[in-house]
Amino acid sequence: MFKKVLVANRGEIAVQIIRALHDMNIIAVAVYSSADQDSLFVSLADEAIKIGGPQPSDSYLNMAEIISAANLTGCEAIHPGYGFLSENAEFAALCAECHIKFIGPNEDIIQLMGDKSNARLAMKKAGVPVIPGSDGVVSDVKDAKQIADEIGYPILLKSAAGGGGKGIRRVDRSADLESAFLSTQQEARISYNDDDIYVEKLLTHTKHIEMQVIADNFGNIVYLPERDCSLQRNHQKVIEESPCSEISPNERQYLGDIVTKATRSLHYTNTGTFEFLMDREHNFYFMEMNTRLQVEHTISEEVTGIELIKAMILVAAGEELPFGQDKAVLKGYAIECRLNAEDPYQGFVPQPGKITHLYLPDGSLGVRFDSGIVQGSFISPFYDSMIAKVIVHLDDRQTAVNKMNRILTELEIGGVMTNQDFLKVILHSDGFISGEFDTSYLEEEILKPQEVTNGNGEI
Amino acid sequence: MFKKVLVANRGEIAVQIIRALHDMNIIAVAVYSSADQDSLFVSLADEAIKIGGPQPSDSYLNMAEIISAANLTGCEAIHPGYGFLSENAEFAALCAECHIKFIGPNEDIIQLMGDKSNARLAMKKAGVPVIPGSDGVVSDVKDAKQIADEIGYPILLKSAAGGGGKGIRRVDRSADLESAFLSTQQEARISYNDDDIYVEKLLTHTKHIEMQVIADNFGNIVYLPERDCSLQRNHQKVIEESPCSEISPNERQYLGDIVTKATRSLHYTNTGTFEFLMDREHNFYFMEMNTRLQVEHTISEEVTGIELIKAMILVAAGEELPFGQDKAVLKGYAIECRLNAEDPYQGFVPQPGKITHLYLPDGSLGVRFDSGIVQGSFISPFYDSMIAKVIVHLDDRQTAVNKMNRILTELEIGGVMTNQDFLKVILHSDGFISGEFDTSYLEEEILKPQEVTNGNGEI
Repeated sequence: MFKKVLVANRGEIAVQIIRALHDMNIIAVAVYSSADQDSLFVSLADEAIKIGGPQPSDSYLNMAEIISAANLTGCEAIHPGYGFLSENAEFAALCAECHIKFIGPNEDIIQLMGDKSNARLAMKKAGVPVIPGSDGVVSDVKDAKQIADEIGYPILLKSAAGGGGKGIRRVDRSADLESAFLSTQQEARISYNDDDIYVEKLLTHTKHIEMQVIADNFGNIVYLPERDCSLQRNHQKVIEESPCSEISPNERQYLGDIVTKATRSLHYTNTGTFEFLMDREHNFYFMEMNTRLQVEHTISEEVTGIELIKAMILVAAGEELPFGQDKAVLKGYAIECRLNAEDPYQGFVPQPGKITHLYLPDGSLGVRFDSGIVQGSFISPFYDSMIAKVIVHLDDRQTAVNKMNRILTELEIGGVMTNQDFLKVILHSDGFISGEFDTSYLEEEILKPQEVTNGNGEI
Repeated sequence: MFKKVLVANRGEIAVQIIRALHDMNIIAVAVYSSADQDSLFVSLADEAIKIGGPQPSDSYLNMAEIISAANLTGCEAIHPGYGFLSENAEFAALCAECHIKFIGPNEDIIQLMGDKSNARLAMKKAGVPVIPGSDGVVSDVKDAKQIADEIGYPILLKSAAGGGGKGIRRVDRSADLESAFLSTQQEARISYNDDDIYVEKLLTHTKHIEMQVIADNFGNIVYLPERDCSLQRNHQKVIEESPCSEISPNERQYLGDIVTKATRSLHYTNTGTFEFLMDREHNFYFMEMNTRLQVEHTISEEVTGIELIKAMILVAAGEELPFGQDKAVLKGYAIECRLNAEDPYQGFVPQPGKITHLYLPDGSLGVRFDSGIVQGSFISPFYDSMIAKVIVHLDDRQTAVNKMNRILTELEIGGVMTNQDFLKVILHSDGFISGEFDTSYLEEEILKPQEVTNGNGEI
């Protein structure tokens, strides 16, 4: 097992990785930007190296500085968390070159899955159903038009290098295709330095269903029960739950078999998540694969009892998974709410500032806060606005959601505005309660009707 | 279901009861002493009534004031928590007279079990093995001597009305019996206004094993997996775990059958705990029954997923238990450490004062803090020194204890001294690690050898 591991991330996920390392009696080294020097994760680490200024490119994306910090401190491995360098094949390759173990899948698979168009082809080959669309990158508007005519409008133009909601454009009719194509290309070039575009049919009334796997180097593959991450705003997940209330045990098994087979045929190791769209007829279509830990891995930990960060470290250290598929049996129901420092009344603009007061109502069965802050912490304008994940795990959905509502009522955060009330509005909505929501629900049913009443202080 | 319930307690358990009420959409009314007016539980309650001064007799033991607060606020029921009036038959009877539901067993059974000598007889009748000793109260020294000669020394003289470690005296030889008898009588008279004494054989090298039951008014009885509460100092539990590492599934079943049968024959309803001593040959002897919720109910919640405070409220409201024995199957392992504001270097003297800094490392799977404090809270000298319960629930003992160690290292409490380091000393001790500790372990193996080194700042 590793003796010393560097955590190439910040905020709550750095805190959680450091804790997992400490639980495994491994020395944890943090790297941090000058904006984060007073952060909780820095104080929890056994050693901490300042690697640059507040801009991500100067610090958390600065490969050379991170590798050099790892060498300097004698770290044998790097855990990249999520975001930043976690899906950067070049960084994974650089780690390998420097004889530092990258805690994640190998660089080839990151590269393959990072190109959404190639990923789609690879999945098709591995027997995973994909969304109708182009067989790979389309080079010009003419090709895109032909494919769109074949599969029918509306379609999505997607940047092959994209992810996280950027470089995606919806096109409803042929007349709009050309200008949309050119602007998506331009956005992709600016955002990802890569203007490859592919075409997909836009499926409406779909749920975002994802399934995480963890695989070791001995051929052992375990899939975790599905997560429903349909509650999104601006392509960012807001609330996630496991299991999805509309998915049957048979469908779970079907998805599990598909992702296990694909994981095996891709020779995929460590953890990754297959994202699917599910239409009203419960057809599943592969969307993309995240070759890293996800924010919402917490709810899968809760419903299975598997500690995923620990499992990632074990696998990276060359050990065999200490559990099999029988361990990943669904136990109860878990929900996660992402608590963000943002102003729901002003277009969810991030709210940097000092946390002057913090009361997280822990205690009572099944409650968990994964957070990177304490009272007095400063929410930096340079990074993601998520300040805590509130997780509840109980026997069934209604009991858990009821407790989540109580917790969101009891929770106190002073100094910055958050989406605390917005989360409660969602949990009290008819669509959420019935479980009959799709990926457009938040924006079309919860936010749109309310835009009119913004002036009344209601979300 | 009740609409409004009064919580006749304070501190962490009042917080937990209020949360359970809120989870059930019931209005929670707190009563508090003048020492507690800025407490967390008071601020969490929907209504709060000041009922008297800081002395328990003026407030949390003041039956008339509590009943009057319940009437004033229109409460239909009272949850007594643990300690204070929770095992007071007179209070339970008073509630009944006032048409307020006492959330606990009925007054007759509290009365019966409150008299430890009668409880022993009742258990013997119900087929529960008891410790060899007198058949009820012994009226004078002569009788006590005769019984002691029969069962053999060492013996215990116990106050029938006692509990929580008071009114108990060990006698090693016949010559010491008379003076011991008289002083135990006197202590019992002062502490409990009742000088009934009974005799029990002192069993050595025993574990304190207890089993909690929850029973409704429809004959449904569920027992929870055993707890090992052998780690005690001054008859106060310090660390509890479930299950006991030395008890087999067959023994669990045997104990479960015994307590279920006794619960049925006693017509016992709501929750209660059967406390046993287990000797080295794994013989079990009934010690006493606690007719209330216990501090350490948390670990039973964790290993079963049953929310016990909720279940108590349901049963008191006349509803049927929503689960059966199959729900109470052991899942993993849970441990609780009681974090006390006390000075382990100075005989564990309580340390009242202001909590100037508080960092509870929540987050990561299986971690729970049941606490009644926040940063800025004042630990009152008038009440128990326990400030938080730290609970970890994971798959197995070693993994959970490892995480507990990490949490006790990460945890920060400023302003008052606590037993944080002492808890870690216990967790690192050979006896704890092997599981081969008995009720004398803490005092004889951990504390005694260290008394010499007190001056070095080591416990």
